Amino acid sequence: MILLTRKAEFSASHYYWNEVWSAEENARVFGKCANRNGHGHNYTLEVTVAGDVDAVTGFVVDLKQLKDAIEKEVVSVYDHRHLNLEVPEFRATMPTTENIAVAIWRRLEGKIPRAKLYRVRVYEMPDLFADYTGA
Amino acid sequence: MILLTRKAEFSASHYYWNEVWSAEENARVFGKCANRNGHGHNYTLEVTVAGDVDAVTGFVVDLKQLKDAIEKEVVSVYDHRHLNLEVPEFRATMPTTENIAVAIWRRLEGKIPRAKLYRVRVYEMPDLFADYTGA
Amino acid sequence: MILLTRKAEFSASHYYWNEVWSAEENARVFGKCANRNGHGHNYTLEVTVAGDVDAVTGFVVDLKQLKDAIEKEVVSVYDHRHLNLEVPEFRATMPTTENIAVAIWRRLEGKIPRAKLYRVRVYEMPDLFADYTGA
Amino acid sequence: MILLTRKAEFSASHYYWNEVWSAEENARVFGKCANRNGHGHNYTLEVTVAGDVDAVTGFVVDLKQLKDAIEKEVVSVYDHRHLNLEVPEFRATMPTTENIAVAIWRRLEGKIPRAKLYRVRVYEMPDLFADYTGA
Amino acid sequence: MILLTRKAEFSASHYYWNEVWSAEENARVFGKCANRNGHGHNYTLEVTVAGDVDAVTGFVVDLKQLKDAIEKEVVSVYDHRHLNLEVPEFRATMPTTENIAVAIWRRLEGKIPRAKLYRVRVYEMPDLFADYTGA
Amino acid sequence: MILLTRKAEFSASHYYWNEVWSAEENARVFGKCANRNGHGHNYTLEVTVAGDVDAVTGFVVDLKQLKDAIEKEVVSVYDHRHLNLEVPEFRATMPTTENIAVAIWRRLEGKIPRAKLYRVRVYEMPDLFADYTGA
Repeated sequence: MILLTRKAEFSASHYYWNEVWSAEENARVFGKCANRNGHGHNYTLEVTVAGDVDAVTGFVVDLKQLKDAIEKEVVSVYDHRHLNLEVPEFRATMPTTENIAVAIWRRLEGKIPRAKLYRVRVYEMPDLFADYTGA
Repeated sequence: MILLTRKAEFSASHYYWNEVWSAEENARVFGKCANRNGHGHNYTLEVTVAGDVDAVTGFVVDLKQLKDAIEKEVVSVYDHRHLNLEVPEFRATMPTTENIAVAIWRRLEGKIPRAKLYRVRVYEMPDLFADYTGA
Repeated sequence: MILLTRKAEFSASHYYWNEVWSAEENARVFGKCANRNGHGHNYTLEVTVAGDVDAVTGFVVDLKQLKDAIEKEVVSVYDHRHLNLEVPEFRATMPTTENIAVAIWRRLEGKIPRAKLYRVRVYEMPDLFADYTGA
Repeated sequence: MILLTRKAEFSASHYYWNEVWSAEENARVFGKCANRNGHGHNYTLEVTVAGDVDAVTGFVVDLKQLKDAIEKEVVSVYDHRHLNLEVPEFRATMPTTENIAVAIWRRLEGKIPRAKLYRVRVYEMPDLFADYTGA
Repeated sequence: MILLTRKAEFSASHYYWNEVWSAEENARVFGKCANRNGHGHNYTLEVTVAGDVDAVTGFVVDLKQLKDAIEKEVVSVYDHRHLNLEVPEFRATMPTTENIAVAIWRRLEGKIPRAKLYRVRVYEMPDLFADYTGA
Repeated sequence: MILLTRKAEFSASHYYWNEVWSAEENARVFGKCANRNGHGHNYTLEVTVAGDVDAVTGFVVDLKQLKDAIEKEVVSVYDHRHLNLEVPEFRATMPTTENIAVAIWRRLEGKIPRAKLYRVRVYEMPDLFADYTGA
């Protein structure tokens, strides 16, 4: 078994806000992220798949298919979007780095021919990232 | 004369939209950036100052004063903000990388003790940046 | 379960020297690192915690608490210090990248509210790093 | 147990081509990589070893021995070479990122004194890498 | 006046060889680069243009036009190619980092609407790059 | 004319301290850097030379000669050293990033065959660097 990882990028806006709480409570828990005008990031995504190396091609996964799946399932939906306002899974779920990693896993699972999705890593900034492995 | 450069970062939202144009014209010129829900970036800022090295301290500029000026004049105003909606200079001016570099120059000019502001570089993404030198 | 990683940095001096050995033996084993005047590095630290995502906040860990724990337990003690001379755990233990990772684990264990410490990675330079997972 | 990772780099040419297939089939499967004049990359290699920290030296592995093994077994053979034409293991095996990781594992296994080879990671480009752990 | 820089990447093979010299002389001058099977790199290209900021759009240059010019004039010709064998300007000129920078300048000059080409920077590796400004 | 830049790295210790001042004054001006046990950095050095491209070799400078000059004149003297205690030019001059850039310029000037030294850039950390051009 071998792992293959491909990176991709998207730029998006988000904010953290709990409708049930007061403005003060939101500010206390979420700090500057509670600004409802939104702020944004250049997110970096690492998608890792696992599998056997095909004896003829030398590939675990067709790179073009992997790239296309990431583009179609994730980047085309998240890039240059406001995650809270435009991406369905974040209407009722906070678009934290953790939840974005889980959401991308769910979007990609079963969409990559031949190989098994192994890990999704999302960088919100170069010094903060989340990993999800589906369990 | 020697140059000293300090980097800083801020995360912000923006969009490109010309009120005078139709939605079609905005989409044609600005592409995905015309989405009025906004999208965002991790901006990286490089502030370069020029001057003589002080014979006693070995400094062109007091690093703490430089850091404080960048924090006070730029980061505290831009970070976790929606540039179009919350930063005055972008109410009527498009917050492009070019215009952000010019705006930061104007905010910092004359605010750094002892050294002369030499160049402002702004990265919108790792593969796109603008330089402004005040002229 | 999800993993969340936060990076931090500190700059410090160190040297490698075994009091029991001759100068020749120290030079043979530790090479340039045996220089007792010390040399230094910009260390990069990655602290990974594991846990469930809180359904309300979307967080595995309160980022501010994580950042504060790293600052208080590690950065305030190691940054701009000579590790051999000023940090207690390196009085009798060589401050190698491996041992620094173990020492940081011990400093952070039990100090991060809610989440479980999962891994400590320390880069001495961009091309050399150690990982410790507590076992 | 602790992990220690050392990076190294080599620049090499390669192409993907299956002699059994037609030119059309090679182009369909391998795209631009099927150009038989070859193209090239700056590969980055991460070699991770596992072991106990030596109580006296503080090392999992003698860094000089690790560096020398990577240089002798891998870099001196791959660097500034055409992988298909000059490296024996790629005469009959496609030099994909996956297969290069496996080949480097086989070259290094048993050649690093004291520590156990734990993982080989190969970056073909900053946004594409493969991991092999020997099983 | 403001500068705007856009990065792009291409992967290519090359070698250094002077037909007039003996193999010994080529090896003496060009070292490992004289291997005629070729070796390769992930080149990074920075294209800088200069101009006034358009008062309406906030742009020095239409980013899509800049990106398209780089793609059409450079990347589509150099990427996944053997520079000596497949790119006309390197049939009789050594594809050194310096000469590649000059060649890219000549390919791009006059092809970028509105702005003036200001500088071409080419990285052969992260620790080696050349700058050409047309004079 | 073309510019060619080569990077190198060295790890060293330093501190900032003015013998004429009290401990309080040193702490006030130099902050954490006034710790006389020293602290350290992974310095990155960029040496830029200028010249015409040789019509036969395609080089502005012989890369091996450039690398050797940087190694001999700078890295072998600074790497794994305590700058204040072991490098002559910093006995009486503060080893700030600015002064290190000037000192490296003086060490390299006239030592690089064929090309002209154009600029020395020194990074003390990724977010702080100084440029010196000899005037």
